[in-house]
Amino acid sequence: MRNEGKIGVWLIGALGSIATTVIIGALALRKGLTGPTGMLTETPPFDGVSLTAVENLEFGGCDVRREDFIQAAWHLSRATGAIAPQLIDSLQEELSAVAPYIVMGTACNCGEAIGQLAGGNATGKEQSLRDEIAGARACIQRFKEEKELRDVVVVNLASTEPPLDLQEAHLDLSALNVALDRNDTAAACASTIYAYAAIEEGCPYINFTPSTGALFPAIVHLAEKNGVPVMGSDGKTGETLVKSALAPMFMCRNLDVLSWEGFNILGNMDGSVLNHPKNCESKIRTKDQVLAKILGYTPHSRVRIDYVPSLDDQKTAWDFIHFRGFLGAKMSLQFIWQGFDSILAAPLVLDLVRLADLSKRRGESGLMPHLASYFKAPLGVSEHRLYEQYEMLMDYVRQVKNR
Amino acid sequence: MRNEGKIGVWLIGALGSIATTVIIGALALRKGLTGPTGMLTETPPFDGVSLTAVENLEFGGCDVRREDFIQAAWHLSRATGAIAPQLIDSLQEELSAVAPYIVMGTACNCGEAIGQLAGGNATGKEQSLRDEIAGARACIQRFKEEKELRDVVVVNLASTEPPLDLQEAHLDLSALNVALDRNDTAAACASTIYAYAAIEEGCPYINFTPSTGALFPAIVHLAEKNGVPVMGSDGKTGETLVKSALAPMFMCRNLDVLSWEGFNILGNMDGSVLNHPKNCESKIRTKDQVLAKILGYTPHSRVRIDYVPSLDDQKTAWDFIHFRGFLGAKMSLQFIWQGFDSILAAPLVLDLVRLADLSKRRGESGLMPHLASYFKAPLGVSEHRLYEQYEMLMDYVRQVKNR
Amino acid sequence: MRNEGKIGVWLIGALGSIATTVIIGALALRKGLTGPTGMLTETPPFDGVSLTAVENLEFGGCDVRREDFIQAAWHLSRATGAIAPQLIDSLQEELSAVAPYIVMGTACNCGEAIGQLAGGNATGKEQSLRDEIAGARACIQRFKEEKELRDVVVVNLASTEPPLDLQEAHLDLSALNVALDRNDTAAACASTIYAYAAIEEGCPYINFTPSTGALFPAIVHLAEKNGVPVMGSDGKTGETLVKSALAPMFMCRNLDVLSWEGFNILGNMDGSVLNHPKNCESKIRTKDQVLAKILGYTPHSRVRIDYVPSLDDQKTAWDFIHFRGFLGAKMSLQFIWQGFDSILAAPLVLDLVRLADLSKRRGESGLMPHLASYFKAPLGVSEHRLYEQYEMLMDYVRQVKNR
Amino acid sequence: MRNEGKIGVWLIGALGSIATTVIIGALALRKGLTGPTGMLTETPPFDGVSLTAVENLEFGGCDVRREDFIQAAWHLSRATGAIAPQLIDSLQEELSAVAPYIVMGTACNCGEAIGQLAGGNATGKEQSLRDEIAGARACIQRFKEEKELRDVVVVNLASTEPPLDLQEAHLDLSALNVALDRNDTAAACASTIYAYAAIEEGCPYINFTPSTGALFPAIVHLAEKNGVPVMGSDGKTGETLVKSALAPMFMCRNLDVLSWEGFNILGNMDGSVLNHPKNCESKIRTKDQVLAKILGYTPHSRVRIDYVPSLDDQKTAWDFIHFRGFLGAKMSLQFIWQGFDSILAAPLVLDLVRLADLSKRRGESGLMPHLASYFKAPLGVSEHRLYEQYEMLMDYVRQVKNR
Repeated sequence: MRNEGKIGVWLIGALGSIATTVIIGALALRKGLTGPTGMLTETPPFDGVSLTAVENLEFGGCDVRREDFIQAAWHLSRATGAIAPQLIDSLQEELSAVAPYIVMGTACNCGEAIGQLAGGNATGKEQSLRDEIAGARACIQRFKEEKELRDVVVVNLASTEPPLDLQEAHLDLSALNVALDRNDTAAACASTIYAYAAIEEGCPYINFTPSTGALFPAIVHLAEKNGVPVMGSDGKTGETLVKSALAPMFMCRNLDVLSWEGFNILGNMDGSVLNHPKNCESKIRTKDQVLAKILGYTPHSRVRIDYVPSLDDQKTAWDFIHFRGFLGAKMSLQFIWQGFDSILAAPLVLDLVRLADLSKRRGESGLMPHLASYFKAPLGVSEHRLYEQYEMLMDYVRQVKNR
Repeated sequence: MRNEGKIGVWLIGALGSIATTVIIGALALRKGLTGPTGMLTETPPFDGVSLTAVENLEFGGCDVRREDFIQAAWHLSRATGAIAPQLIDSLQEELSAVAPYIVMGTACNCGEAIGQLAGGNATGKEQSLRDEIAGARACIQRFKEEKELRDVVVVNLASTEPPLDLQEAHLDLSALNVALDRNDTAAACASTIYAYAAIEEGCPYINFTPSTGALFPAIVHLAEKNGVPVMGSDGKTGETLVKSALAPMFMCRNLDVLSWEGFNILGNMDGSVLNHPKNCESKIRTKDQVLAKILGYTPHSRVRIDYVPSLDDQKTAWDFIHFRGFLGAKMSLQFIWQGFDSILAAPLVLDLVRLADLSKRRGESGLMPHLASYFKAPLGVSEHRLYEQYEMLMDYVRQVKNR
Repeated sequence: MRNEGKIGVWLIGALGSIATTVIIGALALRKGLTGPTGMLTETPPFDGVSLTAVENLEFGGCDVRREDFIQAAWHLSRATGAIAPQLIDSLQEELSAVAPYIVMGTACNCGEAIGQLAGGNATGKEQSLRDEIAGARACIQRFKEEKELRDVVVVNLASTEPPLDLQEAHLDLSALNVALDRNDTAAACASTIYAYAAIEEGCPYINFTPSTGALFPAIVHLAEKNGVPVMGSDGKTGETLVKSALAPMFMCRNLDVLSWEGFNILGNMDGSVLNHPKNCESKIRTKDQVLAKILGYTPHSRVRIDYVPSLDDQKTAWDFIHFRGFLGAKMSLQFIWQGFDSILAAPLVLDLVRLADLSKRRGESGLMPHLASYFKAPLGVSEHRLYEQYEMLMDYVRQVKNR
Repeated sequence: MRNEGKIGVWLIGALGSIATTVIIGALALRKGLTGPTGMLTETPPFDGVSLTAVENLEFGGCDVRREDFIQAAWHLSRATGAIAPQLIDSLQEELSAVAPYIVMGTACNCGEAIGQLAGGNATGKEQSLRDEIAGARACIQRFKEEKELRDVVVVNLASTEPPLDLQEAHLDLSALNVALDRNDTAAACASTIYAYAAIEEGCPYINFTPSTGALFPAIVHLAEKNGVPVMGSDGKTGETLVKSALAPMFMCRNLDVLSWEGFNILGNMDGSVLNHPKNCESKIRTKDQVLAKILGYTPHSRVRIDYVPSLDDQKTAWDFIHFRGFLGAKMSLQFIWQGFDSILAAPLVLDLVRLADLSKRRGESGLMPHLASYFKAPLGVSEHRLYEQYEMLMDYVRQVKNR
């Protein structure tokens, strides 16, 4: 369980808001320009846990857009108002050192919306699936060698893909391999390629997106076989976070939730892609199951995500919760959440990278259920209450310390 | 631990909105006119726990106002819109049977606001403290005898008194007795008299108000000595309930709460009394400590309670929570809670009565920390997180079942 | 301009929430059980204007549902909580006298959602358009004769129909007549039939719904020809009312509205019908044009209407307005509107009936632009600012008084 | 009515957020770095009105704090997030040219809160009132001479003073002069000194604060006598702006406003000073009269202003409006306003300076009622409806153009 050397963080969607914030944040932390607010791995319960220091993280990744990384950082600062331009200024050199390690990605089967982002640059049509996987592996290998990294963790931060129709190839590893050999494009999309490649390279893989192509059962099986820890899906950063904190309250008071209506508006690239109904469907699926799991019954509920360009990275959600109490009286709770999507997500990504690396060093493989609190749809975990999920992580930490 | 016969519920402030709702609700449940929504003691975890049935509860109490109980019920229905007039209609007979057991109470040292409510009717000036206590005991005795009750639980639902300055007499039981003998009016107010009387009569006592006169250390000592369970203070029904559910979320994400500003508006008698700064002070004290206890630090916070007559029983709260995340970015969460004060409180009172009766039958005495989730300022408990408090209750229930 | 005798109010959708509230309200006013809050025609500016008294209004109408009117009134009272059951009780006799005048209506070309409401009862398939019109006229005639009415005003309060594709038959009266003769069902739906019938009977017609089938140019031409005043469309009761009051503020301060996102949730029959995308389309069209007309430019905007059954008649809207001020700074205004749909609409209907009757007595015909403030999409009026529209009405009133 | 040469803008409270934003904004406009969003004088209705160009405004002023102006600008940028640091960077030279013209002001009778700000630097105790006035006049004269200004407009942007008790000296000019001669300190505070000095120097004076010491009747009389236009009080920028736009809606629908509860939280210097009850009193007085004037009756209302440091310049207001409609049903409208105080105020100041200069060139003197829309408590104007006030300005503009 040695914790020496540097580890690499390979970000899929590396020019997006979250990835850019992850990199800026880690570099700022390394230089002592900011603190670790938002990172759980820097709180007292983790004292004494052998985590790789943020200073020892190196960044690279891929994106389907052809854009200058430094420009992406400046754009993010201007658009959000949440990242001071002075910070970008003072990280100019460090950011420039990351830029060469951001390469072209694949938009294979990602739907029209993501295809448009790629603007014809991305791979995804001309190559076979096996070639795509080989290409993705090569990128990770080169990154690892050139940077002399002990290990690489792969995190999917790309825009949401349309949902993949689950077929036999997704449930059984050998069926998946046959489908890949046959170049059956219905069996895989970009997130599948990245996950497959990462696991074959022995890299822990985190699916921070709701894309269902990444961690279906056959891929989880591959991870188990290869001794690689993986986890997902869909980082829990905003409305769903509040939902998973608030919904148990109604249970603790035996109040009947009649309706829980959630309206999300946001304006970044993610919002633009989610404006496409097919891509949005994946997202809403992962958000929608939380309530029923927590309450034990299914109230009327709705999750809408609408694109409002002027908001840029500032996500705003209004939730209206209608509930019934004693003597049948109807009452309501509303909340309004206003947060920066990337600012909320980035520290979770750094936590997940460090915890995935820890899992790998501890010899764990397959799903990491102790990371449930980070995800809207935690794979293999039916617990959706935030505090119970948090306790699952604390239990894991205690267990790590006791070994 | 027999559970036969009827138990009495002696409500202080029996003409107020909460007490009236408690009685209407229990009678409606008894007749099968409504369900137990809002009562935790009727949820599956309590299956198999030997609780007194709601059908076996008999109601009485006292109030400083001279008003007809049936009129109070009609007024409540009209004012809130939450209790159907048809319900009052169909409970006419049962309500009339309760009316004779609502007697005049004491307004001793309750401050000007409550004195005005009493309109000169209430006792509190002409009698000695010892006489007041004797009078309160006699009321309970008569209720118990006439109704042939196995036991009586006393619940304080009266308007909030001004805070009592804690002196030696409040910390030490013998000092308290000396002060009472000396008729030292600085040592006791109405809530003290009721608590003392209840405990001397062997009745469990629940302080559902924030009044600090009820359960100071000397009184708790008296309860321990007499083998009587007691608990308080201040029923957690609205803004503070949400606060205790939400605040841990910020801890689970290592987000810095900068400011938590709460603005409450309400229009019932409780609101009118709280419009008096001294009475309000008691309330705000119990609401204000929750955050610091949960977060481990003290953000800027404010709790305002303002009287808005047009709202009647409908309590509305707006909370603005300003927090800082990664890279120092400031974000916010707001919530708006709109609920009927009495509707939210009444099922908690029924739960507390049944659980206090259970404790007495089990031979417990003094504070009941397992009831922390019901209170804004749970005596003897430093845990303010709602779910942890709920788990404390579940642990107790499991322990009861295993005996 | 005599103002004697009774006038009839023929309500299309007579069993719906708004119609039921109109009738209950008028009967309660007649008996002195309520006041005229919400009715502009009872405010001081109308003193001295010869309006038909509310006492002289008689009610009848049609609906595609077969439901008992008294039951509909009770249901409304229970569902909304806004109409006291005591009121229904004390109007039992008067309501019973209205019930026989509520007859079966037509669901001709109203789309699937309304067809389902009708449950096969309504006419609309088996008869020719000319027969439908004749049938509708016969209903009005019978009502007028039996009740000995001076005049009848027809108000469309039915559920929203899918939008009608405007064709030549809708723009030119003779083309419309040819189409009706040919029984061209693409040319007319239920609202067309009612409007045509009303105008032929000399009855002023108010389109309180967004249905586009009622007052297209050929019908307005018919009204002008027959000397009948008509007006519409879509009563302005909630979110759009606030919008038309607030949007001018941004103009008065030269602030740039970037986005205006409106989310409406409601749970009555209207909401259920609007849950069908085609019916909703008509509604959103009338709501959506307000902003551009007031601001002079088109910000990003969205109007969503979602069905939340638990809300019944209580309409809740959250609007998020993002705007830019000096130095490009982005700021926001949000509002939350919680009102009872029918309670807000009913007094407007009573106003409109009285003002339409006044117009007819004054010999006006065709559109009534002075009624613009009552509508989301006032026909023939480009002014959408609420206060300017209100001044148009005041100007009219002054002119009436000066004659 | 010539419009040549430069005019000076003498800002009282020149280091405060609003003044700093005014100066930054005007300089940025001059350099073409920003647009005039938020300024009404740059909208089409003002085309053809001979207003002094923003390029021809020169800035100076005084403050009771001893702080570097450039530092104040940087601080504002950091604190608010609404003014880009790049902007400050690119105006470095221009801001430096303003700095020497910001001199020490007087804190005479401004109360303890402002006294603390001054930290002993400001004048106000050692000098006589007549000397203070002479000193203030000398500052303006020097500014005018050194900058070769055609005219100077004085704008009070200082923190709110405690309310002045109106005495005879405030109602009658000769009584005021006697009081000043006698050095009667109860007759004048800092805002009086500035107003008196400005008017004696022939400078139009704008009271953008709620301080009542500035434009009491005797001072207005002095302005009339000296041919100087003046106006106030209290810039209408946030909650009250929305209130004056929304309240007429209830009148246009004959809805009864039962309660209008407004809760303001803000965190800048202004908020800190308003945290002192006496200073807050002045503010709340000007905000509180708006409703009664618009509605014609006085609903239950409350205006609270609370200091929340973490908000800095971002003002947030929650207003809860409870109203009654048809059949007595209670409904509600809530709004949440989130804006930058200084960003909202600064363009109004630029408008007011230009319009006051125009008035002076047109030979107007005393109050300028056509500027009512800019103020919470427009002196000499009982119209509080925003749109009517806006029309008053438009009428004035038309009249100016027609001359």
